Amino acid sequence: MSGSRVLSGRSASLAELLASRQVGRGLPRDFYHDEALYQLELDAVWRAGWLVAGHSCQIPEPGDYFTYVLEGDSVIVVRGDDGAIRGFHNTCRHRGSQICSAEAGHVGRLVCPYHQWVYGRDGALTHARGMPADFDRSQHGLMPAAVEEVGGLVFLSLAEPAPSFAAARAALEPLLAPQGLNRAKVARTIDYVVPANWKLVWENNRECYHCNTNHPQYIKANFDHYNADDTDARVQTALAEATARSQAKWAACGLAVTHTETGMTLFPDVERDIWYSCNRTPLVDGYLSETMTGQQIAPLMGDYADADVGTLRIRTLPNFWNHSSCDHSVSTQLLPAGLRQTKVRVTWLVDAAACQGVDYREEDLLPFWQLTSEQDWELCEFAQKGVDTRAYRPGPLSPYKEYNVDGFLTWYVAKLTRHLESSRT
Amino acid sequence: MSGSRVLSGRSASLAELLASRQVGRGLPRDFYHDEALYQLELDAVWRAGWLVAGHSCQIPEPGDYFTYVLEGDSVIVVRGDDGAIRGFHNTCRHRGSQICSAEAGHVGRLVCPYHQWVYGRDGALTHARGMPADFDRSQHGLMPAAVEEVGGLVFLSLAEPAPSFAAARAALEPLLAPQGLNRAKVARTIDYVVPANWKLVWENNRECYHCNTNHPQYIKANFDHYNADDTDARVQTALAEATARSQAKWAACGLAVTHTETGMTLFPDVERDIWYSCNRTPLVDGYLSETMTGQQIAPLMGDYADADVGTLRIRTLPNFWNHSSCDHSVSTQLLPAGLRQTKVRVTWLVDAAACQGVDYREEDLLPFWQLTSEQDWELCEFAQKGVDTRAYRPGPLSPYKEYNVDGFLTWYVAKLTRHLESSRT
Amino acid sequence: MSGSRVLSGRSASLAELLASRQVGRGLPRDFYHDEALYQLELDAVWRAGWLVAGHSCQIPEPGDYFTYVLEGDSVIVVRGDDGAIRGFHNTCRHRGSQICSAEAGHVGRLVCPYHQWVYGRDGALTHARGMPADFDRSQHGLMPAAVEEVGGLVFLSLAEPAPSFAAARAALEPLLAPQGLNRAKVARTIDYVVPANWKLVWENNRECYHCNTNHPQYIKANFDHYNADDTDARVQTALAEATARSQAKWAACGLAVTHTETGMTLFPDVERDIWYSCNRTPLVDGYLSETMTGQQIAPLMGDYADADVGTLRIRTLPNFWNHSSCDHSVSTQLLPAGLRQTKVRVTWLVDAAACQGVDYREEDLLPFWQLTSEQDWELCEFAQKGVDTRAYRPGPLSPYKEYNVDGFLTWYVAKLTRHLESSRT
Repeated sequence: MSGSRVLSGRSASLAELLASRQVGRGLPRDFYHDEALYQLELDAVWRAGWLVAGHSCQIPEPGDYFTYVLEGDSVIVVRGDDGAIRGFHNTCRHRGSQICSAEAGHVGRLVCPYHQWVYGRDGALTHARGMPADFDRSQHGLMPAAVEEVGGLVFLSLAEPAPSFAAARAALEPLLAPQGLNRAKVARTIDYVVPANWKLVWENNRECYHCNTNHPQYIKANFDHYNADDTDARVQTALAEATARSQAKWAACGLAVTHTETGMTLFPDVERDIWYSCNRTPLVDGYLSETMTGQQIAPLMGDYADADVGTLRIRTLPNFWNHSSCDHSVSTQLLPAGLRQTKVRVTWLVDAAACQGVDYREEDLLPFWQLTSEQDWELCEFAQKGVDTRAYRPGPLSPYKEYNVDGFLTWYVAKLTRHLESSRT
Repeated sequence: MSGSRVLSGRSASLAELLASRQVGRGLPRDFYHDEALYQLELDAVWRAGWLVAGHSCQIPEPGDYFTYVLEGDSVIVVRGDDGAIRGFHNTCRHRGSQICSAEAGHVGRLVCPYHQWVYGRDGALTHARGMPADFDRSQHGLMPAAVEEVGGLVFLSLAEPAPSFAAARAALEPLLAPQGLNRAKVARTIDYVVPANWKLVWENNRECYHCNTNHPQYIKANFDHYNADDTDARVQTALAEATARSQAKWAACGLAVTHTETGMTLFPDVERDIWYSCNRTPLVDGYLSETMTGQQIAPLMGDYADADVGTLRIRTLPNFWNHSSCDHSVSTQLLPAGLRQTKVRVTWLVDAAACQGVDYREEDLLPFWQLTSEQDWELCEFAQKGVDTRAYRPGPLSPYKEYNVDGFLTWYVAKLTRHLESSRT
Repeated sequence: MSGSRVLSGRSASLAELLASRQVGRGLPRDFYHDEALYQLELDAVWRAGWLVAGHSCQIPEPGDYFTYVLEGDSVIVVRGDDGAIRGFHNTCRHRGSQICSAEAGHVGRLVCPYHQWVYGRDGALTHARGMPADFDRSQHGLMPAAVEEVGGLVFLSLAEPAPSFAAARAALEPLLAPQGLNRAKVARTIDYVVPANWKLVWENNRECYHCNTNHPQYIKANFDHYNADDTDARVQTALAEATARSQAKWAACGLAVTHTETGMTLFPDVERDIWYSCNRTPLVDGYLSETMTGQQIAPLMGDYADADVGTLRIRTLPNFWNHSSCDHSVSTQLLPAGLRQTKVRVTWLVDAAACQGVDYREEDLLPFWQLTSEQDWELCEFAQKGVDTRAYRPGPLSPYKEYNVDGFLTWYVAKLTRHLESSRT
């Protein structure tokens, strides 16, 4: 009720604000400072779409669960007796108490700690001591939240009803399959609190214009920091050779090169409102994995029979991206935590059978993406401080290097505009 | 001014919110998240009624004082030269400076630290250096706040004028008298910050549905976790025997059993708008005191000549409850500290002459109520997190076990509704 | 946009609030608690006038810079190749990133850490890799903020355009000249966070009514805590003698006594809207410097040939005051940091050639003003807590001792009223 109350009083000025953004430029200052806009974002983007909640390998057995928390909302993601993963809002149907207070665990049944109402792993209320004879337990099961599993990733939607997941599944499933994330294990998780609005984190992610100086390790392995303006003959030849070599070799094992140019693949697709994307692309010659040395540092994952599989990349708006190599996979999940703060979790995965200290060493596994991540968080912090200054004015985006920043911002403004219009009528 | 300004713009939607609560169910989510409602609560409940500010034994001598602070308001509670306890707003009549910055102390006169304006213990301004000849000191005494003392408890009202205290005094005085809180001393105080809205703390206090699993020590001593649905013959017989035994014995020393059933006594009384309540009830056979062993662990208090006096209980809305045994008394005071936070002070009192280490040991005195309190605060935290989830919907209250939760919420909604209506006209 | 949006909805009630202040009394409670008023203050006072950003001796060489931060705004204050000091908003013209994240440093060029756009020390954009051929660098220089240097003080304005500085320069320059702040060095800086609204800090600064009890060291050296009501014959004679002695002596070296009475000089000048003031006044006989012993404790500064130069005082609204003696100078800078918090920086300066441990010792230099400052911050904290109490009512100001508090508040209310009126039309 408070949310809608606030919106009704401010929708006119929010519409004005949304209309003030110019294509080809960054966002005006108020996009990073308006509390009502932030609430609209949560409704129009975060609670409307699909979020990557985690990895299915985190909850291999029936009764294994983790909780997923977004700005007050909490969902229990639990594997049922039938092996399927389900989501339930983490609130008892009696007085509303939180049921699971741990981040993860295992339950036989879901028992509310307050008055011991008991729910099955399928959410059904099975016991409620102290209630009258005419109390209908069947009407008081845990409230479900939509969950979809694809290729080892667990997606969750807070929307009621959740939007269709079919197109995303069709796009992601075939490319994810050989990576074997469903047969992986979490090697390490690092949580960050980035002092920047979540959009600034995406803006950072959507271009490699900043890579040359800020990510010295990243640019050695990749082609995507080269663009139409600086892809010289040497770079073009190297990429063409890598692509040709890979295409020939990978075809044999059913893998395809799906991004064959310098620069980043176009994402999101504003025209078709596509929020998910996945592609495989070659690494620079000499790089078999996104590691500091370029060498494979852990056992091959999934269906891979050879280390030379380039890099698989996934991104889904509004909260996820992943870079996968032959031997490991790195997932990044975002959570808005107020106007000026974003929680980020980076998760490193390896094959389920790989053993730390024997099959791989953390000191080989972590640095490439830990460095890249932390370098980016510092830039995001600078960006936030910069847009805090009242003198900030959105400047021109580079058409060569920041087309995806432009696309992301256009997608975002369209999402909010549509939501605002639909909530007014 | 800001308060009323905010209200005027939002009273319509607040009235809607208040009307949305259904009897027999918990409160809708916005009751725990709406900042304007919180401000209304402060005005309609906290600054309108009587609050237990402390115990008269904390300030035995003229000039002894403590300060009482509620959301910015600060009151000096001081014993005057005539022995009476008075309240004065802790703000100088000159530039407004706080006069007493300590939580408690002793003063000859009340001297403002800023420019040394001097007030007597009766609040009168006696010196104001540097003011012109025509300055009228008699118009610049400290502003009084109403204070009432009953049976060793110090009540304070921030209302102007304060509501009548007569009915509360008539109800509390006779039952409090034999406990001798005015001849007691504070043995120990523990302060908590509970991460939950103050109403959730009261909702927790108003039922013993949660006791079976969460308060193993408490249920051994008491009958109030049994209700109409689970008071079996064995329990009924035990209570009847305890009541009969007590009634016979206590009559001799002028004490009466005023609550003779299982379950909690009805409070608050919504029909008659009664915010205070006091009763004496037997403990389980073998329990002489609310202690871990059930044994008396300190000298008898007040007028008691025998340890077998059951338990005296007091509760006053919105901020106080107390459980007293023959040998000690435990007061709990609440203070709202924002929408999602409640400060709680638990105070253990014993006879004024009792000496720690000689007549009693803290390790015997504290655990029973320290455990009960801390178990409750954790449940309140779970409750807050649960109602934070947007999927939370108020569920059905147990008619057997949560009638007092229902009553408290009905009383609360009525208070706010009435205040909102009167401030509109 | 948010700022103006908020204001438009609230300007009527803000005008009412401003009108509610009575001359001769303090401010009503809402002046210290209304968030919209605070935003108006930032616009009408802090971002409209001139602020002392620092001392020119902090950035002696071309390329030396410090950053000045006020509620999100950040300005780079840098000495250019031509020796002039300039101000630039600390936000890149590309994506807005903060350019300088350090508090102070030295730069060859100003390079944005995000995408390496390069600006000269004069703010001109010289390089922007990755931009198209038609990109006009000349339109994308750093946005300037007005800076003025006078007598070693660096003033900065966030206003666009900045108001005229000419009258302030004319008033300050001749009195500041002999002090030699432009040939000084910073001996020590202490930063405080005072838990009080910035106006309370100024109210404290604008009277010496509180000095007698609270500043025992200060009153030994000065005459300004005596006023019309308590300047007795002994004090009057002492001041007259000190003034006569000084006037005779100082005339020889071109210094003048510009404040010859007890009590504080009148400031601000409400009638003529004068926000800057400077005067020289004698110290008590036996005091050559504002030190604990009254003795000179560091080499003479500037043009002084003799230690007996009394004390030079400067004050500029809204953020600065300074007390200078023959041998050292103490600057105090304020920054609002929310409704209930003020950041304060106290800077001790000595002659540029003076060497700690040889020419002066910190333990002699600091105590006089460190004590005075910290005594005041505690009083400001008491004042804030006092005006937090809802019972606070603005009391009468002493006409003898608090005329400058009255003047400051009148000046402040006039500033806000005028700004509110002009932003409505």
